[in-house]
Amino acid sequence: MNAQIETILNHRSIREFKPEPLPQETLDLLMDVALRTATSNGLQTSSIVIIEDQELKNKIAHLANQPYIERIPLLLIFVADQYRNHEIAQAKGVDASNLGDMDRFFQAFTDTCIQAQNVVNAAESLGLGTFYIGSIQNDPSQMIELLNLPPYTLPIVGLGIGIPAQDPQLKPRLGKELRVFKNVYPTYPDILSQLKVYDEAMTHYYDLRNVNRRLDSFSDQVANKSQQRHALRADILSIMKAQGFKVD
Amino acid sequence: MNAQIETILNHRSIREFKPEPLPQETLDLLMDVALRTATSNGLQTSSIVIIEDQELKNKIAHLANQPYIERIPLLLIFVADQYRNHEIAQAKGVDASNLGDMDRFFQAFTDTCIQAQNVVNAAESLGLGTFYIGSIQNDPSQMIELLNLPPYTLPIVGLGIGIPAQDPQLKPRLGKELRVFKNVYPTYPDILSQLKVYDEAMTHYYDLRNVNRRLDSFSDQVANKSQQRHALRADILSIMKAQGFKVD
Repeated sequence: MNAQIETILNHRSIREFKPEPLPQETLDLLMDVALRTATSNGLQTSSIVIIEDQELKNKIAHLANQPYIERIPLLLIFVADQYRNHEIAQAKGVDASNLGDMDRFFQAFTDTCIQAQNVVNAAESLGLGTFYIGSIQNDPSQMIELLNLPPYTLPIVGLGIGIPAQDPQLKPRLGKELRVFKNVYPTYPDILSQLKVYDEAMTHYYDLRNVNRRLDSFSDQVANKSQQRHALRADILSIMKAQGFKVD
Repeated sequence: MNAQIETILNHRSIREFKPEPLPQETLDLLMDVALRTATSNGLQTSSIVIIEDQELKNKIAHLANQPYIERIPLLLIFVADQYRNHEIAQAKGVDASNLGDMDRFFQAFTDTCIQAQNVVNAAESLGLGTFYIGSIQNDPSQMIELLNLPPYTLPIVGLGIGIPAQDPQLKPRLGKELRVFKNVYPTYPDILSQLKVYDEAMTHYYDLRNVNRRLDSFSDQVANKSQQRHALRADILSIMKAQGFKVD
């Protein structure tokens, strides 16, 4: 154990921040971290858009259906990006249409996410709070339009960063026996009884987003969320196709 | 700046390790970190397979075309996983076929990658070295078979961890002006001249995988790699379809 791991183990999503903006040198440091993140084949197929414009922030808050996004001191959008390399290859006189292949997109997706988590870890080590915004996927076409994203790119995840103005409980998590395996993936002969203790723990956790009520058990959450379907989100391959990726 | 960020900024891929295995408590700590990683909607849609079996390790080394994988003290495979929740929902009597939707896969993909990077950061904070193994994607069907992965899962990335037995140079990276933008994505009116300094820096970097020769410039690397195509890798959507994901 060390201070870094203690910080990591203490991760909670922070959604309310003190209003002050982050100093420029903090932003610079976080971006240095982003640029040094591991990247598949050294190809650096991710980009970051810093949302400084308040009107743009408001639009993203609306699209993501999370009003507190309007108040985030620092909002970053992480973008899977094969466009820059496509431009480079074309400038070199090379046909770069392979960069629209799905495996290239997967590489860019991976680059993008590990970069975001590196920024999270660096930010938390500075005492800042963070939360991921997956719901920028609610309307990817609109996100693409708002950020003027070119072909061969896709916005993957947003990240809010600031000085925490709340101190949520640690959220209970599944145990290792359900998530970490040796050599082969297991079967789950009686998964609901394996979940019993965890299900119970979850009902004692208070989510600050819904202060006045306890959460459902995990298995009830999973059952409920499995029945929800968001047509625009589910149709992401159509948007990828419009972005030039080869999805069929 | 702090020790954690210094560690992050000093990231290099380490591919040769001292032969000793990691203590069990180190592995436990890294898995605690993995379990506490942020996760979309709290749904925890990733799993880790620890590869302890030497024969299995050898097969993965062969499939990934990286012989040094046989000698990794700790080899982890990170798996995007909607299967566990599918089983939970089914046990609750719910039709969980929505979990095969692409947006659900994207959530799982994100969960998986940020978990891997959290483990990287924790490992490096302990003085360990790491390297990502994207080439498990060279033959996803075989990976699925080797690990006995069920429907609604896909292996995303491998990670090697151990005590470093090499000390590579920091690899030059693209500058911020090419990867970090404000509010909108830019155009690249003359990208090759924007790359001039970086291209030059890259030719002075020695890759320990090819000790005896310098690297090509970045733009040459991009041009060359854009022309390569790996049919099995590019066809990942067919494998996802066989895994139950709705790719059309």
